[in-house]
Amino acid sequence: MSYQDQPIGVFDSGVGGLTVLKALMQHLPNESFIYLGDTARLPYGTKSADTIRRYTLQTAQLLVKRGIKMLVIACNTASSVALESLQEALPEIPVIGVIKPGAAAAIAATKSGNIAVIATEGTVRNGAYERAIRELHSSVVINSKGCQLLVALAEEGWHDGEIVEAVVARYLQPLLHNTPNFKPDCLVLGCTHFPVLSTAIQKIAGPNITLVDSANTTALAVAELLQKQQLSRQSDLPRSCQFLATDAPERFARIATQFLGYTLSENEIGLVDL
Amino acid sequence: MSYQDQPIGVFDSGVGGLTVLKALMQHLPNESFIYLGDTARLPYGTKSADTIRRYTLQTAQLLVKRGIKMLVIACNTASSVALESLQEALPEIPVIGVIKPGAAAAIAATKSGNIAVIATEGTVRNGAYERAIRELHSSVVINSKGCQLLVALAEEGWHDGEIVEAVVARYLQPLLHNTPNFKPDCLVLGCTHFPVLSTAIQKIAGPNITLVDSANTTALAVAELLQKQQLSRQSDLPRSCQFLATDAPERFARIATQFLGYTLSENEIGLVDL
Repeated sequence: MSYQDQPIGVFDSGVGGLTVLKALMQHLPNESFIYLGDTARLPYGTKSADTIRRYTLQTAQLLVKRGIKMLVIACNTASSVALESLQEALPEIPVIGVIKPGAAAAIAATKSGNIAVIATEGTVRNGAYERAIRELHSSVVINSKGCQLLVALAEEGWHDGEIVEAVVARYLQPLLHNTPNFKPDCLVLGCTHFPVLSTAIQKIAGPNITLVDSANTTALAVAELLQKQQLSRQSDLPRSCQFLATDAPERFARIATQFLGYTLSENEIGLVDL
Repeated sequence: MSYQDQPIGVFDSGVGGLTVLKALMQHLPNESFIYLGDTARLPYGTKSADTIRRYTLQTAQLLVKRGIKMLVIACNTASSVALESLQEALPEIPVIGVIKPGAAAAIAATKSGNIAVIATEGTVRNGAYERAIRELHSSVVINSKGCQLLVALAEEGWHDGEIVEAVVARYLQPLLHNTPNFKPDCLVLGCTHFPVLSTAIQKIAGPNITLVDSANTTALAVAELLQKQQLSRQSDLPRSCQFLATDAPERFARIATQFLGYTLSENEIGLVDL
């Protein structure tokens, strides 16, 4: 197998990154993928930066041993604290996160220059979106809010309906509608779990606020990088897509089916130890 | 320090076990405690039995090294799968879980012999409550339900109000009121997080259903064991209570304050690596 025909590694703390994988599979129909969910140690969103860096490096090294040609960190929390240390530790392959593409999409979407961000506690505490957005445009106004419960709702498979809307409203009302001198026209879904709740989020946010998720923009960034580095897959054999989890493959398969939109069975999930 | 004056170790995957610690501190005002929350690797409720056993043994060994005279597994998930292997691995100290005391309390509370249990996915899948209850009384009828989202609500500090009641109702209505030939008069809170939501749970369950939590009954079982094995603390110096976490002490202190009912600050939480 030529180097270009090797798969792209996609890593997340659990199942949320499957929204990014779904976009990658749509935008890059000829590429193969290995997805690894660190389900034994999720969620990363409530852990300290040091712990997240250590866990992310372990999982990345496992994927490198499996022969990936590129690594996508499909987890906002891990991207926010571990991207640079990973790029240093793995100079042999390109490593791409979801924060910068998400920040670029936010800048493209906003007209008022007022941007709201929802994410896990870890991502918000770290301030990664604020930094990435301000690097592109220094004069925007940004407000962020940790919405930890949305992760649990997404994983429980409660994706719409009254309860989801009530939880979303409790988080979003103060952020979007009751912050003085802040009139956002753009809401960044700064956690890869959140796109599965986007119908409820859009309903509460209202029609004047554009939702931005980093899945599509990350897929476009990956496509561009593959072309630029001449890494696109050459083989005309069907592409492969392999799934690995560090724990509980039955649960992974059940939730992955909801996130990907096609059925995965438990015995398609490889169990790996870290 | 004499052996009797050593602290009792209390272990949980995170903060939920603090409801058990609170009961222990009330029932045993002269005993010292070390509480360890494995916050880096929580939640245990969605992990496989092997992983839970491995993690629980590591944390127990750390507490043994700190010189505990007894260990309380204040986590239903860990008690359900790891109690026996822990008792084998640590023959030098008594190890007590929360499942058996909870099962005994359920048998004492029920008149109809119909018992409902809510717990994490891991505890329900494992069937530990059913086994423990049936060991005490073989002819009862038991139905269980995994209520994973209640853990996230408890940790987010959303303990009552409309959203909590709606989530509780979505889980409890089918279990308590719409299961054919099942008329429970007793609901076991089979996760140490759930007692902080008990007002909402009682409201949805209705006045004819008795809530049973294992915190008080576990504290009584510990008191009995201390007496029987002549392990009660002798010193008349004030008792100590030490807190350890494997990650994110700031978050631990914030949630612990809500669970314990008195203020803990971040610098009272020791950070340990596992």
